[in-house]
Amino acid sequence: MENKRSSPSCIGIVGLGLIGGSLGLDLQALGYEVHGLVHRSSTAQKAQDRKLAQVISIDTKILSDCELIILALPLDQLLKPSDYLLSALPKSAVITDVGSVKAPVVKVWRELHQNFVGSHPMAGTNDSGVGAGKKGLFNKRPWVTTPEAKTNQNALAMVGQLAVQLGAQLIEADPNMHDQAVALISHLPVLVSAALLRTLSKEENPTIMKLAQQLASSGFADTTRVGGGNPKLGLAMVRNNKSAIVHALRNYNNNLHEYEKNILDENWAQFQTELEQTKELRPGFLKDDD
Amino acid sequence: MENKRSSPSCIGIVGLGLIGGSLGLDLQALGYEVHGLVHRSSTAQKAQDRKLAQVISIDTKILSDCELIILALPLDQLLKPSDYLLSALPKSAVITDVGSVKAPVVKVWRELHQNFVGSHPMAGTNDSGVGAGKKGLFNKRPWVTTPEAKTNQNALAMVGQLAVQLGAQLIEADPNMHDQAVALISHLPVLVSAALLRTLSKEENPTIMKLAQQLASSGFADTTRVGGGNPKLGLAMVRNNKSAIVHALRNYNNNLHEYEKNILDENWAQFQTELEQTKELRPGFLKDDD
Repeated sequence: MENKRSSPSCIGIVGLGLIGGSLGLDLQALGYEVHGLVHRSSTAQKAQDRKLAQVISIDTKILSDCELIILALPLDQLLKPSDYLLSALPKSAVITDVGSVKAPVVKVWRELHQNFVGSHPMAGTNDSGVGAGKKGLFNKRPWVTTPEAKTNQNALAMVGQLAVQLGAQLIEADPNMHDQAVALISHLPVLVSAALLRTLSKEENPTIMKLAQQLASSGFADTTRVGGGNPKLGLAMVRNNKSAIVHALRNYNNNLHEYEKNILDENWAQFQTELEQTKELRPGFLKDDD
Repeated sequence: MENKRSSPSCIGIVGLGLIGGSLGLDLQALGYEVHGLVHRSSTAQKAQDRKLAQVISIDTKILSDCELIILALPLDQLLKPSDYLLSALPKSAVITDVGSVKAPVVKVWRELHQNFVGSHPMAGTNDSGVGAGKKGLFNKRPWVTTPEAKTNQNALAMVGQLAVQLGAQLIEADPNMHDQAVALISHLPVLVSAALLRTLSKEENPTIMKLAQQLASSGFADTTRVGGGNPKLGLAMVRNNKSAIVHALRNYNNNLHEYEKNILDENWAQFQTELEQTKELRPGFLKDDD
């Protein structure tokens, strides 16, 4: 760690689920002293067994020496943090989060802590809980920080350095721009995909339903993957990014209606041109491992 | 081949693209004499190099000894077969196809040949053309035959036996039921997925567009995979299964509007219940390798 100024001596992680636990494993491997705060003793024991941090406790005192604290909490808890947690955060520490929606989080936390930096590591699996954390989760994944005009620049540098050390691709973005972008590429797909499953669930002819189940191929599996994901996570995203999602949903509806119109009018040349354009567009959104 | 009665001595394949070429490779491995008919000399040469059949030609005479002929042609050619092809099909041979829509194919071919059996092997990759065929493509995949009341039972048995020998899961279905089921699990997903890409393409804010490209993860890649597929194939499916697709599209729109309503009304409990139901529904549509 060549840059002593911005390297924290001790990193606190609040919550040791998928994201928090993965951070704990990688940060220890990078040589950091990691302190993990959890809610329940049973979770603390499991986290200890998995060695997710060097020090794991339900006592907030373990955060007192940490120069950087990562709030790896669900959005709901992040937006309404307990007084118990707030009183445990050292005033001089740098605080960051991992929430998938940024404007409401930044709005709350800019009032709560002088050194808050919003961030969103875009990594995940279908697993959750204290058993889910795994090494290398952030490697080559985007990690967005969302500074505002008043954000402490040293704090921002510390969080950014951390993301880079974890192998992530650091991206800075305005919180509102971030939320509109993720509405399009992350939240809208969940709704689009879930609505496809909902359409199947409403099929009233049992012969068609059975055939549909027998004939569904990997294409159907792919298109419905995110719609069949964690319902609580889906709800939290939609609830906290409502206006961007409703906007995206309306645009989506217009586009689907255009297709329907082309089909009804048998405007096949136009329809094929549309499909050619979407085919050309897709590679621009793919990563190496897609 | 224990059942001499229904095993053809020679199998003809018309078209040696992904499906036809894959059939050629597997059928030869099963010990069959395979004759492949193609359109162009250059294709014949490439097919010969790849050993897609023992006999490959642009001359329809090679079909004259075949007891089973598989029309591995695009839907458009299947629905308007050339007189040249029709005159080359022996009257006593069993004829089947591999088209992804069945009612219009069956409607045309029941008038053209007494021993026609509609079928749809549900296997595919993103590849096409004479270089695309590969071994084992049909293994463990569904293969639908769509007999009607007048279908010759011996012909049906021969096609069914072939599917089973290729390792496919044989399913019999009414042509219309088949088309409605594939509209739901195969064609609707293409539209839903393509409309998602179209929505992104209409984003006017360049900062959001760039962020969306940087932040798109494997979830976006999965949801847009079938929408970014072969435009000609997409068009052929929609064109030939129009009424079932429009019906599916309208049901889909209603379901998406329900989500939008729940979100606007902040009816979160209902919205979460919906997501829980779709999550429970999805495994019923998955295969072992999804």
